Amino acid sequence: MSQSFPSLADIRAAHERIQPFVHRTPILSSTAINEIAGCEIFFKCENFQKVGAFKARGAANAVMKMTDEQKSKGVATHSSGNHAAALARAAKVAGIPAYIVMPSNAPEIKKKAVKGYGGEIIECEPNLKARETTLEEVVKKTGATFIPPYDYMDVIEGQATCALELIEEQADLDVILAPVGGGGLLGGTALAAHYLNPNIEVIGCEPKGADDAFQSFYAGKLIPQSGPNTIADGLLTSLGFLNFELIKTHVSAIHLATDPQIIEAMRLIYERMKIVIEPSCAVPLAALLADQDSFSGKKVGIILSGGNVDLGKLPF
Amino acid sequence: MSQSFPSLADIRAAHERIQPFVHRTPILSSTAINEIAGCEIFFKCENFQKVGAFKARGAANAVMKMTDEQKSKGVATHSSGNHAAALARAAKVAGIPAYIVMPSNAPEIKKKAVKGYGGEIIECEPNLKARETTLEEVVKKTGATFIPPYDYMDVIEGQATCALELIEEQADLDVILAPVGGGGLLGGTALAAHYLNPNIEVIGCEPKGADDAFQSFYAGKLIPQSGPNTIADGLLTSLGFLNFELIKTHVSAIHLATDPQIIEAMRLIYERMKIVIEPSCAVPLAALLADQDSFSGKKVGIILSGGNVDLGKLPF
Repeated sequence: MSQSFPSLADIRAAHERIQPFVHRTPILSSTAINEIAGCEIFFKCENFQKVGAFKARGAANAVMKMTDEQKSKGVATHSSGNHAAALARAAKVAGIPAYIVMPSNAPEIKKKAVKGYGGEIIECEPNLKARETTLEEVVKKTGATFIPPYDYMDVIEGQATCALELIEEQADLDVILAPVGGGGLLGGTALAAHYLNPNIEVIGCEPKGADDAFQSFYAGKLIPQSGPNTIADGLLTSLGFLNFELIKTHVSAIHLATDPQIIEAMRLIYERMKIVIEPSCAVPLAALLADQDSFSGKKVGIILSGGNVDLGKLPF
Repeated sequence: MSQSFPSLADIRAAHERIQPFVHRTPILSSTAINEIAGCEIFFKCENFQKVGAFKARGAANAVMKMTDEQKSKGVATHSSGNHAAALARAAKVAGIPAYIVMPSNAPEIKKKAVKGYGGEIIECEPNLKARETTLEEVVKKTGATFIPPYDYMDVIEGQATCALELIEEQADLDVILAPVGGGGLLGGTALAAHYLNPNIEVIGCEPKGADDAFQSFYAGKLIPQSGPNTIADGLLTSLGFLNFELIKTHVSAIHLATDPQIIEAMRLIYERMKIVIEPSCAVPLAALLADQDSFSGKKVGIILSGGNVDLGKLPF
């Protein structure tokens, strides 16, 4: 694992490294949504990514950077969602074991995905302490390398490749919106934009019911998330330490969206773009529509982070 | 309106004519679905088409071929669904009025679409007789040109442009599967394949609960649909006369799928491809999965016909 924040060369090397294992996802636009929003939006569709989420990038990068000795003992993590599947898949591609600690209430579709990639699931109580304790035991027993979901340099470096592709194809963006949970995607996005075109403003978008990044950003210190309550189940975690450093330096604002706004934006994307996204993924469009004047006439990149939703539990 | 079946030159001219008004839709594949199906599938994504369905092609072609005098009085049709929105939009683009007779039980999303394009909706009882009588009155009153949903040469010619694009990009297909309701899409597809590569087998796919095309095809005479009962609400109508002629000549078989098979295939497309389709659209994949041996190892084109589904009424 690298010791300092990735350079542009590091991000480009990561992009090269993971390229055989992930999709270069399409960038889509919708005339109808542009008309509603009053600006020009370029959606980077990571819902079409391998494992259905941008997390495939960071996990692949972290696994491919491990030494052969590390690889022989496998990887481990705790995750309620997409990082779990992403790490299990990266391990499968590398031919090594993956031990995934998951809260017992994790969505069925996400457990199924981990098992589908041959990952070994170790269930625990649905709280951070239980997840950390269980993971410690697994690592002690197996010698596996812990690959954290977001607060980890090689993961951030991998997630940065998404904005790299977006900006390569659409260099004249005024602003990029990305959702923020743990901050791996937002941190990586901010770093890539900073290197490639510092005129692009990067804004984090967060559900009002899990607004620790918003609180932390404006207080200037990390304030952990407590009692999150939102439909955006991929954004419940607290902001990571490394990611907060990146966000403080390279992100210009955090915008919020309420659950009804998130559901409305999600529905708009299903109806007008005919694509499947998970609720967390709708947060940036929801935040944009809640504050249209700020984006009027601009060219806006939005990272659609993932499409792993329990179809039986859609909010409409 | 042309008097004989369109030639290849006619279909190419239609493609040119409608090109400014419709999308060239992408062709997508899914490794996961290919593995499940045991063959290589190329999905032509007309769910991403303007108005969310291939119907945009036929309607645009028919409207653009009208004389100025005809145009001045507008167009009229009866349709429970996508043709209604497609004709309303084509009329809007051409700057002429559209009178749309719709059964009172048509899905809300489809009525909304027609209104959104400025079409005038005339509601009637949900049966063919009421639709035809109401339409006759409208045409008599307004002088509008009736553009039928499928049994109409200029509409068939427009629908044929979809397979034209598919075969242009993927010339080595062994077989193309298209859903069949009224038969405009299947007829146009069969005609295009016949001209461009007669080695491509064209198979119609129909819900078991509305199997008049199957019955007609194997009886060698038109047997109208009575009492259709299927979730595939875009395929309830009876096969058209012109389309039956095309299908008898250029289609090699009609395959059936039950509603549970249709729902399963629909779910597979949502989960694995992360795209939104309507139930009718899942019929070809459902038919393929119900008879995998017939397609084993083949290159299969599937036309995904549309994505206009009431999200509040998904069958999962």
